[in-house]
Amino acid sequence: MRRISIDVRMKTKVALILSGCGVYDGAEIHESVLTLLALAKAGTQTSCIAPDITQRHVIDHATGEELEDEDRNVMSEAARISRGEILPLDNIKAENYDAFIYVGGFGVAKNLSSYAFDGADYDVDPAVIDLIQAAHEAGKAQGFMCIAPVLAARALGEKHVQLTIGNDPDTAAALVAKGAQHIACPVDSIVVDEANRVVSTPAYMLAKSITEAESGINQLVTAVLKFC
Amino acid sequence: MRRISIDVRMKTKVALILSGCGVYDGAEIHESVLTLLALAKAGTQTSCIAPDITQRHVIDHATGEELEDEDRNVMSEAARISRGEILPLDNIKAENYDAFIYVGGFGVAKNLSSYAFDGADYDVDPAVIDLIQAAHEAGKAQGFMCIAPVLAARALGEKHVQLTIGNDPDTAAALVAKGAQHIACPVDSIVVDEANRVVSTPAYMLAKSITEAESGINQLVTAVLKFC
Repeated sequence: MRRISIDVRMKTKVALILSGCGVYDGAEIHESVLTLLALAKAGTQTSCIAPDITQRHVIDHATGEELEDEDRNVMSEAARISRGEILPLDNIKAENYDAFIYVGGFGVAKNLSSYAFDGADYDVDPAVIDLIQAAHEAGKAQGFMCIAPVLAARALGEKHVQLTIGNDPDTAAALVAKGAQHIACPVDSIVVDEANRVVSTPAYMLAKSITEAESGINQLVTAVLKFC
Repeated sequence: MRRISIDVRMKTKVALILSGCGVYDGAEIHESVLTLLALAKAGTQTSCIAPDITQRHVIDHATGEELEDEDRNVMSEAARISRGEILPLDNIKAENYDAFIYVGGFGVAKNLSSYAFDGADYDVDPAVIDLIQAAHEAGKAQGFMCIAPVLAARALGEKHVQLTIGNDPDTAAALVAKGAQHIACPVDSIVVDEANRVVSTPAYMLAKSITEAESGINQLVTAVLKFC
């Protein structure tokens, strides 16, 4: 009689939170795709997630001008990046994932928070705050790149979470005003807050090329998955 | 007296032709970003290019439904992928670039050609035909991935160009009807037409994951740059 070996290892489940599609009004596309690539190479099962809300802005990315008469839905636009597979953020339970990664883009500052409009007085979408806090309480790993650390600072300021947005003094001060610790960091590196299981990297806050962004993003993904 | 050495080597100039932003009505985003990444790693100077025309369709990528009341501009949407840096296709002269790469997505079949609507009876935007033929006459390298070989078949059918779209029999027959030769090819490989300096790969015509797409795309970029 031969023994049959069945591989029952579960893949690590990662939630990738998007805020639209396009750097000036949504999720930064390079950051999103580089993260999907790194997660796929690591063998994770990745779900793309976005809020089912209307974008605050629609920007013509060729001219930089606002298209005032257009309304676009954050989840529908984010689904462009995920080739149609998208889940509404409101339904997401932290316990169903091992890790959460938030990419950048102005969508974070416009759709997931009010940072683009209110600066240091910004607030964050309550559903996003709830998800970050629930994930933290459940001991899940969380990664934040580019401008996305503004979300973590608001949700985990009381935990004095360590974060980086690179070296922009105004943005760093806004994080600190929420209770977070800001640590300056070059584009090709990451900041790891071991106690809070939070990883961050500057990505396109500093990157001058897609290869510069890739270096920090790959390190962020590796560090997030190490916590899982 | 010391001699001063100045590096005057010119970077290889590559034109990346996009057809919008999103697999169902524009350029396939993963293919676009993976190509930008491979080109950046190879040290090329890459320009993103798209026609300044209205999209034929706007598809809600979360539901798959057409948004009939929306109009979007192909060049403005493509600029989301290129972070704002985009050139109108009408102004592009083949002599100013060393190589041309066309990514896939339904934008190729809807905005750059009529393949999505007319099947084997399709035609291609005259400006795209002109650019492909001018590049061919000037001996430039050209790469076509996913469904983009329909463009090359129409423009270079008289040259009996060798192309692959993977193994879909209907699409292959449509290429052959234009005079092209179709060569079946797995997702992790490429077809190189040495005489016509044309490279093609199936990408998301066959890819079931971003890593599968990456393999063929990286090989396509390497093979295109070998011609330069």
